[in-house]
Amino acid sequence: MKNNFKVIAFDADDTLWVNEPYYRETEEQFFRLLGDYLPAGEISRELYQTEMENLPMYGYGTKGFMLSMIETALRISNNKIAPEILQKIIGLGKKQLTQPVVLLDGVVDVLKYLSGKNCKLVVATKGDLLDQERKLKMSDIQHFFHHIEIMSHKKESDYQKLIRHLDIEPNEFLMIGNSYKSDIEPVLNIAGYGIHIPYHITWEHEKTEENGNHPNWMKINDILEIQNILQ
Amino acid sequence: MKNNFKVIAFDADDTLWVNEPYYRETEEQFFRLLGDYLPAGEISRELYQTEMENLPMYGYGTKGFMLSMIETALRISNNKIAPEILQKIIGLGKKQLTQPVVLLDGVVDVLKYLSGKNCKLVVATKGDLLDQERKLKMSDIQHFFHHIEIMSHKKESDYQKLIRHLDIEPNEFLMIGNSYKSDIEPVLNIAGYGIHIPYHITWEHEKTEENGNHPNWMKINDILEIQNILQ
Repeated sequence: MKNNFKVIAFDADDTLWVNEPYYRETEEQFFRLLGDYLPAGEISRELYQTEMENLPMYGYGTKGFMLSMIETALRISNNKIAPEILQKIIGLGKKQLTQPVVLLDGVVDVLKYLSGKNCKLVVATKGDLLDQERKLKMSDIQHFFHHIEIMSHKKESDYQKLIRHLDIEPNEFLMIGNSYKSDIEPVLNIAGYGIHIPYHITWEHEKTEENGNHPNWMKINDILEIQNILQ
Repeated sequence: MKNNFKVIAFDADDTLWVNEPYYRETEEQFFRLLGDYLPAGEISRELYQTEMENLPMYGYGTKGFMLSMIETALRISNNKIAPEILQKIIGLGKKQLTQPVVLLDGVVDVLKYLSGKNCKLVVATKGDLLDQERKLKMSDIQHFFHHIEIMSHKKESDYQKLIRHLDIEPNEFLMIGNSYKSDIEPVLNIAGYGIHIPYHITWEHEKTEENGNHPNWMKINDILEIQNILQ
């Protein structure tokens, strides 16, 4: 892979720090709270359907997830849900918004390594602005990054906008992230570069086919490999 | 006022387009839904208290407002609220997220005028990223702006970050907005400039004392006056 990028952008959730496991934990507790109405698998499908319906209006992030949990609880209980349970759902969401930030293995070493090179590092992530800023602040890796870009979506047009904003050419841009669908595919489609580091859990919405033949990306298992790739 | 700004930033809600009246309308309906429990004035105080408690976690915007309405309804009804009412509250929030975008008088003329000058125009606003992007897109004034900056807060440090990001000096920055507290005061404190255009309704949280003596700002009643000020 080429090696002279002007900007290297890192996805945040499940690339720099743990995220999806917190969602899964919250969901497990949500399923238990609604156990009187449906089995966990069916609640999961109902919740996902609500989230997808609301996505164009709410976007990504914990607040929209909380609202979708509440809406799902109302619907599957046929408005019979006890208000106490809704209060607990709000509590689950608030807990998720104050979870500790746990960096993934190797992240600090790679950032230290890259900060010695002549390129700008940024965070490019979806989610709630304030929540992502909080996590970056608490992570103790904020000083490695020039700034954080919160993106409402990660489609081609969003990356085009990002690249214009960064005042660079697409082939000077490398995106590193755990979602092929959000972090790699759209970047390849606009002639940028990508490094895919799968995480052990992937949100249903982020699953997709991979284009193994495209020359501008590679998949690695350990973020530390970046030090060899970008020597 | 000086006239050679490199960047002119516009606040969005109640500066470019109508916003606070939509919140007030939603609140009025919320008060009516909870009319069995408390008089409107007291519900209003309870809601504001919930919003302020949640602000550090939720930040600004409609989704946090929806969650705070739900939490307030649960609390003041002592968890006796009918789930149908909570469903209606979610409906109120969703309606607010799809309201038409109504530009304020004079906005298009002023943007046309300023776009003929040698300065960069940006939108600098709080709120939900996706919602503000939607409003800008629907407003038909997107093409006047270099980009939109969504800020989690509008404190001095946030403007300092914005100015660093824009790669300019504070005295090359002019902020135009309807909130003295959010759009003018913090900008003056970092040696930038401000033009305050009060809107006829102000959210309780945005009310503050004004420093009438500071030389770097002025208050106007009509956005069209900007054409004379920045001749």
